Amino acid sequence: MAVKEYYTPTHVYFGEGAADMAGKVLKENGATKVLIHYGGGSVVRSGLLDKVKASLDAEGLSHVELGGVVPNPRVSLVREGVELYKKEGCDYILAVGGGSVLDSAKAIGYGVYGGGDVWDFYCGKRKIEGIEPVGSVLTLSATGSEMSNSSVITNDDDPDMIYKLGIKIDYGRIKFALLDPMLTATVPAYQTACGSTDIMMHTFERYFHQGYALDITDELSYALIRSVIKWTPVALETPDDYDARANLMWAGSISHNGLMEAGNANPGDWGCHQMEHEISAEYDVAHGAGLAAIWGSWARYVLPEGPERFSALGEAVFGESDPVKTIEKFEEFFHSIGMPTDIKGLGLNFDEAACRKVALGTTFNDGRTIGNFKVLGTEDVFNIMMMASGLK
Amino acid sequence: MAVKEYYTPTHVYFGEGAADMAGKVLKENGATKVLIHYGGGSVVRSGLLDKVKASLDAEGLSHVELGGVVPNPRVSLVREGVELYKKEGCDYILAVGGGSVLDSAKAIGYGVYGGGDVWDFYCGKRKIEGIEPVGSVLTLSATGSEMSNSSVITNDDDPDMIYKLGIKIDYGRIKFALLDPMLTATVPAYQTACGSTDIMMHTFERYFHQGYALDITDELSYALIRSVIKWTPVALETPDDYDARANLMWAGSISHNGLMEAGNANPGDWGCHQMEHEISAEYDVAHGAGLAAIWGSWARYVLPEGPERFSALGEAVFGESDPVKTIEKFEEFFHSIGMPTDIKGLGLNFDEAACRKVALGTTFNDGRTIGNFKVLGTEDVFNIMMMASGLK
Repeated sequence: MAVKEYYTPTHVYFGEGAADMAGKVLKENGATKVLIHYGGGSVVRSGLLDKVKASLDAEGLSHVELGGVVPNPRVSLVREGVELYKKEGCDYILAVGGGSVLDSAKAIGYGVYGGGDVWDFYCGKRKIEGIEPVGSVLTLSATGSEMSNSSVITNDDDPDMIYKLGIKIDYGRIKFALLDPMLTATVPAYQTACGSTDIMMHTFERYFHQGYALDITDELSYALIRSVIKWTPVALETPDDYDARANLMWAGSISHNGLMEAGNANPGDWGCHQMEHEISAEYDVAHGAGLAAIWGSWARYVLPEGPERFSALGEAVFGESDPVKTIEKFEEFFHSIGMPTDIKGLGLNFDEAACRKVALGTTFNDGRTIGNFKVLGTEDVFNIMMMASGLK
Repeated sequence: MAVKEYYTPTHVYFGEGAADMAGKVLKENGATKVLIHYGGGSVVRSGLLDKVKASLDAEGLSHVELGGVVPNPRVSLVREGVELYKKEGCDYILAVGGGSVLDSAKAIGYGVYGGGDVWDFYCGKRKIEGIEPVGSVLTLSATGSEMSNSSVITNDDDPDMIYKLGIKIDYGRIKFALLDPMLTATVPAYQTACGSTDIMMHTFERYFHQGYALDITDELSYALIRSVIKWTPVALETPDDYDARANLMWAGSISHNGLMEAGNANPGDWGCHQMEHEISAEYDVAHGAGLAAIWGSWARYVLPEGPERFSALGEAVFGESDPVKTIEKFEEFFHSIGMPTDIKGLGLNFDEAACRKVALGTTFNDGRTIGNFKVLGTEDVFNIMMMASGLK
């Protein structure tokens, strides 16, 4: 086996009341002036933002704010954050929100550290060589960005040319994450379900790969998937159930921090993520719903490359070793939590031209392939989109 | 739930050939002169030490050596290491070996950083406020010290007063760990089995606690225990089986890095470890064997405090929900891999006085209690020792 890295330096504080520690932890980390970055009004309305600011005030830390992060966070706001951070002489970024806020905060950190236009780093023009320190108060169990090395940003410079690009680099592993499961108790059902789907998919993407798989990593993956299947319905039924929220929150973090690929020959497939990024950049659908909408079609398309991988998963999760039935069981689960399992379920009507457009966008006009369980070119992505659209 | 921390900053490089990266990784970490710390002759005989030195030479890093670490590592050698490190102007410690070498290396790191007599830190006279940087080439899957925050050192100043004391503090989380499973392929069967027992026990100690348990953490714990039970016999049968060695090595690391207690209300019982440390400080038995020898007696003694915890474990691991039968099944497993399940099996014959002595030693002459699943005083430890010695 080739040597693979596992690196999860983020200091996690997990449990009810973790957000109250923001000031204390920031101070311990040497912060003096903090850029508080957040999204829409919910952290304001819930009083969380005030609570966090009070916690910083109590430690004598000054702070400035930048709200307005949207799902599929925009480079325009990142640029604004970079300027504000520099102008105000900040030395720490605190992301208060979900994955989009975190990704935007990381991008600000790259932009300040590296200078110049931050988009250069996302489109590959320049190499990232550092980041300003980032911490987080997490309010959504989904992207795992609080422990992952990734950040995905959408370029909105030109409405006719939407790019959504992601970077994975260890500088993106933030300094600390304050994880209070009860902060997710007010997340609406649809977003909760989208988050759970994203969590499952982060494990699926790693699980489905060709080459050596470490058995214990497979077993941990099965355990994680079973947990998401067990606790998501509880969270939907009883939104303020601590158990449900805590299990989903921790599942989200360890699904995407590298644990679910440790010891494996390679880091996974990631084809569904690449396709979904293209769809959600274009149509602004929720990431989790987009993943649920295409996963089944992807799975049926790639199944011949390794049915035994589906069988083992099905057996461990559902006691069902038939690979096709395993795919169906997962689709049933997605339905049961209100997720779509095709493009129509996203409220979109793809015709052949739309499928072709997504396919070409995904492969950068035939400029790259995606996937690893099965390597997919433009024609493959087109076929999967046609299947997901009920056209094939 | 109170807020709990999860912090695993150690940069892991996992896979065949990881040891060859020693020089490169040390250089990336800023090392210029390295104290290479190791144990007995096996790393010399196997050629590993030469390989590691060649890897340092290739990067232009100078180095000095200190071998001679024994199981239950001694403070006398630690003191020697502290002096050597200072005299030679080293700036990094590389532990090449198993848990004892790692623990000794951490102690040297504390001693150099803190000055004065290093034992002060272990007996609680002074607080640790930093450590010299430590990296590791691991040769044994057992203690998990490569990702844990702990270091256990034995004081050999006075042969009549043996103290074996452990420190748990985040400074003890080393900078990097090079984990090549094939380096453990030559570990003899008995040591392999001792290691697997230690790995299981690190999860047991965390699993058995009173208070809130995060469901997904329980599930990961079950998966880990099943893996150890699955792969230990394979490693004994086919010592150079990569799968077996890789699964055990990773199980060892994640069993003791905090993952198996994440989200739980408290960090676990640790009673068996406290008792075993007393036994092995006094009689120099192998740690894993010592744990196996007392676990069953401990389990029967504490069972009334939470039989449902044993039932859930038994169900998940053996499909056996009877708590007493669950304990028996684990004892059968220990037997099957050549581990003892009582004190006699350690080659020791405890009489009542010996049991009393261990009990008093464990509780520092009634100066503390141990355990959390059931809090144990001197009389409790005495009873458990009597049971483990076949006297009760």
